[in-house]
Amino acid sequence: MTTQTLSLEDRIAARPGDFRVLTGDRPTGPLHLGHYFGTLRNRARLQHSGVDLVVVVADYQVLTDRDVAERLVPTVEGLILDYLAAGLDPDRATIFTHSAVPALNQLVLPFLSLVSVPELQRNPTVKDEIAHSRQSSVSGLMFTYPVHQAADILFCKGNLVPVGQDQLPHVEVTRTVARRFNERYGPVFPVPEALLGAAPLLLGTDGTKMSKSRGNAIALSATADETARLIRGARTDADRHITFDPQTRPEVSGLVQLAALCLDEDPHQVAATIGAAGAAALKRTVTEAVNEFLAPMRARRAAYAQEPGLVRDVQRAGNARANAVADQTLLEVREAMGTRY
Amino acid sequence: MTTQTLSLEDRIAARPGDFRVLTGDRPTGPLHLGHYFGTLRNRARLQHSGVDLVVVVADYQVLTDRDVAERLVPTVEGLILDYLAAGLDPDRATIFTHSAVPALNQLVLPFLSLVSVPELQRNPTVKDEIAHSRQSSVSGLMFTYPVHQAADILFCKGNLVPVGQDQLPHVEVTRTVARRFNERYGPVFPVPEALLGAAPLLLGTDGTKMSKSRGNAIALSATADETARLIRGARTDADRHITFDPQTRPEVSGLVQLAALCLDEDPHQVAATIGAAGAAALKRTVTEAVNEFLAPMRARRAAYAQEPGLVRDVQRAGNARANAVADQTLLEVREAMGTRY
Repeated sequence: MTTQTLSLEDRIAARPGDFRVLTGDRPTGPLHLGHYFGTLRNRARLQHSGVDLVVVVADYQVLTDRDVAERLVPTVEGLILDYLAAGLDPDRATIFTHSAVPALNQLVLPFLSLVSVPELQRNPTVKDEIAHSRQSSVSGLMFTYPVHQAADILFCKGNLVPVGQDQLPHVEVTRTVARRFNERYGPVFPVPEALLGAAPLLLGTDGTKMSKSRGNAIALSATADETARLIRGARTDADRHITFDPQTRPEVSGLVQLAALCLDEDPHQVAATIGAAGAAALKRTVTEAVNEFLAPMRARRAAYAQEPGLVRDVQRAGNARANAVADQTLLEVREAMGTRY
Repeated sequence: MTTQTLSLEDRIAARPGDFRVLTGDRPTGPLHLGHYFGTLRNRARLQHSGVDLVVVVADYQVLTDRDVAERLVPTVEGLILDYLAAGLDPDRATIFTHSAVPALNQLVLPFLSLVSVPELQRNPTVKDEIAHSRQSSVSGLMFTYPVHQAADILFCKGNLVPVGQDQLPHVEVTRTVARRFNERYGPVFPVPEALLGAAPLLLGTDGTKMSKSRGNAIALSATADETARLIRGARTDADRHITFDPQTRPEVSGLVQLAALCLDEDPHQVAATIGAAGAAALKRTVTEAVNEFLAPMRARRAAYAQEPGLVRDVQRAGNARANAVADQTLLEVREAMGTRY
């Protein structure tokens, strides 16, 4: 078997040290189970396999769909605790904030020269965010968001970007930027590959997508009691017989899936076990499964939170590492572009 | 008379130390007499009056209307020699390049969140540059150009921007950014004032606007012989009687105006002095006036060019000063936005 025929996953498993992953989050609130099963679990898995992990806390991007970012300091600190709780190792991963790495942000300018306004307008994710934006008109920051993301990925020469299907066009912008830069100025950047995740869409306690703003999300940092209360108030339906059928019974099926993911079982099996015991039994099962699943994470989180200065140290070390990498890349970019005087 | 009734020029004259001017150029080629009478002369005058002068060499902005910037190092060095020749004092002025000041460039990101895409689309200068662009489609860098300019002006808290009538909308974007930032996050930036210049439109040796790309421009750095040759080849018309009438005789009037500016005389007077002596006499007058006018600048330029390392030192000192200012402003911006962790 030649390397060409190996799948991306197989190539990562064979040579994890060849890969650098860029992922990240906007610090808009506590991470929840939707984040965990959607991306955090995968990040921890990649790091465990030996891939180099770079995680951006995209504080400027909070402003893409709101005017002012409030309480960023505690939100970012909470986010980092969530990362540590979910198993990211700060000694190996580079965790940094956008606003602390000027050389990364500078890359946005040459990169903006490599994409056209029509290309930015065509990007479906930007289109979608525009359609759902609460602002009356779209800001320049949201419009140029995929270029900022290209800077995130390329400043550290990331060559692997875990994404959901809907984020593929973003990675395409980054690939375009990398290819055009290399063509015009010489080979500086890898052309990163998208690692498509098969993450399930996690539903919240009301049968719609789990999201902090909908009040239907189980935060990693919530207490067992808060979790029990939230699940107790979850929406179900009139049919006592529990089944897993996301199309016709989204609320009940969302709860079944939550339990199944936490128990690492098949959702049909979970539903069958409850059978005709009804919604109350389902909720008991879910509560127990979720709280048991989250217990070690919550314990880790509490322990980290009690270490004085730990979160600050993680930030400081991550920002310092990111700045060193970004300064070096910017130097190469300036060299390639002929702007070292 | 209260201060409210003082004109901007009077206020500058009364308290020059209260003003910091941001100006600059894209390093696309040698500066010529059009630049001199359009802006350089005014910069030297402002500096001489005691105003603090900051000059950006906008190397990234070269890419707004072309794909790759070529030979930037010698072009930027030539530009700085032109500045020194025109009388800018590098010990007092801060001369820096965009690509060397990351903290300035980072400001583009929060500033992009303060303007909407429709506002960027409406900007007439961007519209105009789009219409005249040689690229088939407009780049993201050109589209966001007024926001980058806002970062240029505001990184150093510039409060005075000398502009021509056509650049007023750009300053308006900067004023909007400053106002909105201050409203949302607290008072960090001055709201800069535009200093409208009454600079004449200088015509080249073919009767159209003087521009390097048209081959009709008299470079500050050209030799007396090159200048004479260029003027000898200038377009005139069949009427031997020399007059100053820009509407009906643009070629002849452009030459008359060139002489008049260099001689500091009224163009009608210059034309009357030549009278019926014809185009050859006009060209002799222009050549003499221009070469005499430029002689001290050219001598200064040659002397500076011979000092080994001088231009590099000016760049290094200017970039260091700009970085110190930009780092401080970025710190204040991060403090105000709540992004210091």
